[in-house]
Amino acid sequence: MSDVKKVVLAYSGGLDTSVIVKWLQETYNCEVVTFTADIGQGEEVEPARAKAQALGVKEIYIEDLREEFVRDYVYPMFRANTIYEGEYLLGTSIARPLIAKRLIEIANETGADAISHGATGKGNDQVRFELGAYALKPGVKVIAPWREWDLTSREKLMAYCEQHEIPVDFSKSKKKSPYSMDANLLHISYEGGILEDPWAEAEEDMWRWSVSPEAAPDQPTYVELTFEKGDIVAIDGETLKPHEVLAKLNKLGGDNGIGRLDIVENRYVGMKSRGCYETPGGTIMLRAHRAIESITLDRESAHLKDSLMPKYAEVIYNGYWWSPERKMLQAAIDETQKDVSGVVRMKLYKGSATVVGRKSEQSLFDESIATFEDDAGAYDQKDAEGFIKLNALRLRIAASKGRNQG
Amino acid sequence: MSDVKKVVLAYSGGLDTSVIVKWLQETYNCEVVTFTADIGQGEEVEPARAKAQALGVKEIYIEDLREEFVRDYVYPMFRANTIYEGEYLLGTSIARPLIAKRLIEIANETGADAISHGATGKGNDQVRFELGAYALKPGVKVIAPWREWDLTSREKLMAYCEQHEIPVDFSKSKKKSPYSMDANLLHISYEGGILEDPWAEAEEDMWRWSVSPEAAPDQPTYVELTFEKGDIVAIDGETLKPHEVLAKLNKLGGDNGIGRLDIVENRYVGMKSRGCYETPGGTIMLRAHRAIESITLDRESAHLKDSLMPKYAEVIYNGYWWSPERKMLQAAIDETQKDVSGVVRMKLYKGSATVVGRKSEQSLFDESIATFEDDAGAYDQKDAEGFIKLNALRLRIAASKGRNQG
Amino acid sequence: MSDVKKVVLAYSGGLDTSVIVKWLQETYNCEVVTFTADIGQGEEVEPARAKAQALGVKEIYIEDLREEFVRDYVYPMFRANTIYEGEYLLGTSIARPLIAKRLIEIANETGADAISHGATGKGNDQVRFELGAYALKPGVKVIAPWREWDLTSREKLMAYCEQHEIPVDFSKSKKKSPYSMDANLLHISYEGGILEDPWAEAEEDMWRWSVSPEAAPDQPTYVELTFEKGDIVAIDGETLKPHEVLAKLNKLGGDNGIGRLDIVENRYVGMKSRGCYETPGGTIMLRAHRAIESITLDRESAHLKDSLMPKYAEVIYNGYWWSPERKMLQAAIDETQKDVSGVVRMKLYKGSATVVGRKSEQSLFDESIATFEDDAGAYDQKDAEGFIKLNALRLRIAASKGRNQG
Amino acid sequence: MSDVKKVVLAYSGGLDTSVIVKWLQETYNCEVVTFTADIGQGEEVEPARAKAQALGVKEIYIEDLREEFVRDYVYPMFRANTIYEGEYLLGTSIARPLIAKRLIEIANETGADAISHGATGKGNDQVRFELGAYALKPGVKVIAPWREWDLTSREKLMAYCEQHEIPVDFSKSKKKSPYSMDANLLHISYEGGILEDPWAEAEEDMWRWSVSPEAAPDQPTYVELTFEKGDIVAIDGETLKPHEVLAKLNKLGGDNGIGRLDIVENRYVGMKSRGCYETPGGTIMLRAHRAIESITLDRESAHLKDSLMPKYAEVIYNGYWWSPERKMLQAAIDETQKDVSGVVRMKLYKGSATVVGRKSEQSLFDESIATFEDDAGAYDQKDAEGFIKLNALRLRIAASKGRNQG
Repeated sequence: MSDVKKVVLAYSGGLDTSVIVKWLQETYNCEVVTFTADIGQGEEVEPARAKAQALGVKEIYIEDLREEFVRDYVYPMFRANTIYEGEYLLGTSIARPLIAKRLIEIANETGADAISHGATGKGNDQVRFELGAYALKPGVKVIAPWREWDLTSREKLMAYCEQHEIPVDFSKSKKKSPYSMDANLLHISYEGGILEDPWAEAEEDMWRWSVSPEAAPDQPTYVELTFEKGDIVAIDGETLKPHEVLAKLNKLGGDNGIGRLDIVENRYVGMKSRGCYETPGGTIMLRAHRAIESITLDRESAHLKDSLMPKYAEVIYNGYWWSPERKMLQAAIDETQKDVSGVVRMKLYKGSATVVGRKSEQSLFDESIATFEDDAGAYDQKDAEGFIKLNALRLRIAASKGRNQG
Repeated sequence: MSDVKKVVLAYSGGLDTSVIVKWLQETYNCEVVTFTADIGQGEEVEPARAKAQALGVKEIYIEDLREEFVRDYVYPMFRANTIYEGEYLLGTSIARPLIAKRLIEIANETGADAISHGATGKGNDQVRFELGAYALKPGVKVIAPWREWDLTSREKLMAYCEQHEIPVDFSKSKKKSPYSMDANLLHISYEGGILEDPWAEAEEDMWRWSVSPEAAPDQPTYVELTFEKGDIVAIDGETLKPHEVLAKLNKLGGDNGIGRLDIVENRYVGMKSRGCYETPGGTIMLRAHRAIESITLDRESAHLKDSLMPKYAEVIYNGYWWSPERKMLQAAIDETQKDVSGVVRMKLYKGSATVVGRKSEQSLFDESIATFEDDAGAYDQKDAEGFIKLNALRLRIAASKGRNQG
Repeated sequence: MSDVKKVVLAYSGGLDTSVIVKWLQETYNCEVVTFTADIGQGEEVEPARAKAQALGVKEIYIEDLREEFVRDYVYPMFRANTIYEGEYLLGTSIARPLIAKRLIEIANETGADAISHGATGKGNDQVRFELGAYALKPGVKVIAPWREWDLTSREKLMAYCEQHEIPVDFSKSKKKSPYSMDANLLHISYEGGILEDPWAEAEEDMWRWSVSPEAAPDQPTYVELTFEKGDIVAIDGETLKPHEVLAKLNKLGGDNGIGRLDIVENRYVGMKSRGCYETPGGTIMLRAHRAIESITLDRESAHLKDSLMPKYAEVIYNGYWWSPERKMLQAAIDETQKDVSGVVRMKLYKGSATVVGRKSEQSLFDESIATFEDDAGAYDQKDAEGFIKLNALRLRIAASKGRNQG
Repeated sequence: MSDVKKVVLAYSGGLDTSVIVKWLQETYNCEVVTFTADIGQGEEVEPARAKAQALGVKEIYIEDLREEFVRDYVYPMFRANTIYEGEYLLGTSIARPLIAKRLIEIANETGADAISHGATGKGNDQVRFELGAYALKPGVKVIAPWREWDLTSREKLMAYCEQHEIPVDFSKSKKKSPYSMDANLLHISYEGGILEDPWAEAEEDMWRWSVSPEAAPDQPTYVELTFEKGDIVAIDGETLKPHEVLAKLNKLGGDNGIGRLDIVENRYVGMKSRGCYETPGGTIMLRAHRAIESITLDRESAHLKDSLMPKYAEVIYNGYWWSPERKMLQAAIDETQKDVSGVVRMKLYKGSATVVGRKSEQSLFDESIATFEDDAGAYDQKDAEGFIKLNALRLRIAASKGRNQG
């Protein structure tokens, strides 16, 4: 363990990663560089500076990555209408590649030979951090304290703090939540506590970002979202940057009780786990994106996208953002978004985000053909006979040869 | 056209298909057999008898197919969590194969050499009826009056009625809706009218099966759904037949404003069309089925199902229920459902159907492994290192050879 | 039929398309523009000029499209290792999009409002021509004489020639083959005649491009193929243009009895048909491309390509080259080829093209890791335990819950 | 390590697994049960008895599993036309699940709590053995000596033999091959030695099962293969059991130089490796199976099979035979094979296995429709126009809206 000289740590400023700073210094006898990012988790990042300094850290990186996060990670993912296992909008998964990338870039800048993170050995995040790190810097050393140390209970952790004079007020600042939480501009997640029983309903006071549908306003809110090439660029006519879009949609969604999710998901490491999520803005974005695609995207492209989406979601969930297969899929997805532009009108009401209108200059909806009224010859109904006859031919031949198709 | 001796017509008892009876008799100089089925559309089917008799029909089939419809078509489809283009629950599509099958069976019983239907030449239903018919009786003659006749406007149709003394009160019984509608136990659909402008919001009085979320009760309704092998067999502990399940869920869903959908979809015949749908029970079923699968179904089976689902949905939407590829997919899907049994608890509230609990004797959720607490060695966190290292190997080699993965 | 003013015809100079020239002039009373292309079919195209002139054609296009054909159509297709139904290298399918594109471009240049072709109503080529034409010029009128006229037998065709003084020596130039044939730089195909019995072996004298394996040299030929970004750019060190590469490989393959294929395939129009093909160069290219990918392409990209390939092949076979879904797939495929560069060494011998070596500066094959000898710690075998343990976890949980997996 | 009481070892009788017997006894102080199976590797298995006895083994299992191997593993796999990465017929992969199953069954019979195997920590076989074992007996202990011990060179291994009086003639019986080899009824494989350089051509004297194409007979051999439900049941009219079929095809193929393969493949553990394979019978079976499917299998089923095949191959290659996803895929595949019956005629000649004829009572090839001659109205060419028009509709609409599709 003596061969690590300098390690870059993903540092939240919280108790756990503060313990890790000390543990790394002590165990590896190495220098620690901390990296703290604002990706919209809703907490100040600047206080992490003083905490790191108090722990003897000399190189401290504190960055606002909100715009980059939404523009280069969240938006590309939403172009694919990405959902994991039919429900999960990948709020945690999509933040990890950016953190991994910055860890490696900082390692390169500071001459560090290792990176470290506070993810446990049971979860997906360790995988996402480390696959990203290895993909970007193949010789990097990764230190995952939770897989190595013996501080396996809260008691041992607290004892370690006391022993090493780590300010205990790290954890006193607010009442300790019974849940393990993670947040960024796309979502906040909850695991553990009573959620470990999949039959138990989440308690109302667990949810932090949204009011309950019951407590939401009795009047619906309407909102118009403008898309350009698959991405939202304006809300109600106001041009916004990607992270501003998401922040505003989070507010609108949260106020209307939108985006709560309670699921059991399959982790990459092989177990099922219960998680609750609030993704107010993402929930609105997803439906809106499907709606703008519904009038601007070709049918076969749309179906092909749908058939590739579960794979794409799996790739991201499992931590392979920085892989060639993700880039391959992204190339296909992005190719389809060139004309996905226009406006979607949505109604937000007590937990539901409903599409009520969509329009586009690139629309492929052709009223003159689709109409139930006289179409002036735009579509020849007699063509349908030949279409059906030839599509039926293989079925007819099979039936005529005695194949039982019933 | 003289070679048709007897034709079986899918007869609703409404004006259009009544005109078709007469038109067939006159144009083909053939006998007409009518077939009217109760598939849960919510209207009496028995009145069709007198109407058919009045048109001179001698062989009249009127049948209650509700149980068969849900058991053999709706339920198998829901095992796959089937959604077309991310939104549509295939309410119309799934009813057509049953109608096609009965048309052919009746043709065989009555010695008819042709079948006929009232679907237009622009829609999907003609395809679904005819592909089914050809697959089950390859030599059958199909007559699609809307593709053949010149009664291309309502005026001409009414003139034809007058000329042939078709009782005009067929259409007077209720105010003519501005929408083209279709209904069965799974859903009711609306097309045409102002919906032909995708930017126009549907009017509140269009919806027939559900109250608006705004008008739904202020208190949530909780319901427990019991699954066996992927199908719902009981509601709140009461054992029900498949069609009783769906009817009850339609009531529960409709009362709580659940299941409204407003989309633009891609028809198989090549155009985009706007449709509004109410699928109260189906919307609940879909989420509940995903929830019971989430604790009972293996991860890789679940992901494989998800990746096949868009294809399966397309096969059904396009009318290929009676095809070998549908049976091939069904075999795969059904293979996965053997242990998909248990109970899902849902909360219904003003338009939302939310899963709040799930339990099963076949559960694969293992609390002793998933826990954040001490797991007594059920899972060795150190295994994760090797897991990540080998999964990262190809990425590391690529990076070490200079591949830019950023 | 009076509304066509000028039509561009895909004109081979043969009897059938000469009859079409006359038939179009007479039936539509319109001007005919002929388009004849050299795509490597192995026959002179210049003689088509005099024939067209003799038929009164004033605008005559004769073009050498060989380079464009291989560079922009054949090569992109081979990047995907494309095979239809496990066997067919799509030699006919891939030539049609280029012809369709030129027909439309010439229509635009000459102010023509229609195009025409000599493909029958039973085959795939009509679909490929027409889908391409409609995709590139949506309002174009397509005239497919074989679906319209009554010249349905060779006798009627000959009578028409006599009646219209079409020089009969069109067909006397060489003994009429009993097969329907099509050729371009990628392949030559044979259909009809005794091949209509799938049990009958093709006669040796049918094959035109290759010697039989039995007649091929008793000594193998070795050849080295240099790839850049997925395409062959040199043979045995000599830099060649795409069409020169294919011509040379056709010669090498044909001399060694390589590339004969005898299959029953599924046409898009719904029937099965027997076809025999000679694709000497393509057969060599396909194996060589897989070989260079085997050392330069990432595993997951390769597997994803393999799973998309059948779809891509179907898209091309069915005539959707000029569709958004083809471009979407192409974007994914091309993204993977950036590092597919290097040299493949092949042995050609009596019908077999065998890979015997491959090397690349972009190789991901890492001998230091793969070796059975001591790897000096490049790979830690102990990592495999964790890798297996976590991959097995879901299987173990299922088994421990009593799932029978045997 | 003291907690293992009895371990079942996959025992070949060779030097390496003999060392493992001793090492297990010594290291774990446990009883060893040996299991040696004849799966067609071409060597006597009975001599393993005396060797095991000499090592103090009391429970010795020696079994002939050839029929079960081909019937329950090879045949089901070939129904899918399974090929890994476009080339590899999975000869090694498909034998492992059977060995794993028997190891577990014997563990259950003998009351053993562990299994062991002689596969290294770099390869796929460890994964295949262990995933199978865990899936069938989740609590089993797996001992993989090559990942644990320090006998990491041949010298150390020999020293261990001498020290423990393991008869050295184990290895003297025949000249030690420079290659790592594995064989069963489906194939023989070679790795290591000069093959570790992917540019180096394999030496002629490496190949053991086939003559070189150059040395094969100058006259072709014709053979007729009879299929029932996707499996070969007779050769040249002689009914044979599955393993007899494969043995005979190996002879026929090997005599004609068929089935040699030289590839670089992607291992599940993350590295690329060079392997050479001889699969004479399998190579013939694969082409023959595609040929019988070509006339008996529906087009869409065939295409769906092709698109699922890479996944199915990956599942088997990676060792997930005993997984729910393999069973799911198998259900789909088997569903398609009900009518895949008939006879295929093949020509074997100097390395090539060529299909020259196929016939079936279940044939879907309809000569009356496919013919170039007059089809007496079996197919109406005019239907093609409507078929094309509607398939083109989406492309035309897009083009008319200004989408550039070129």
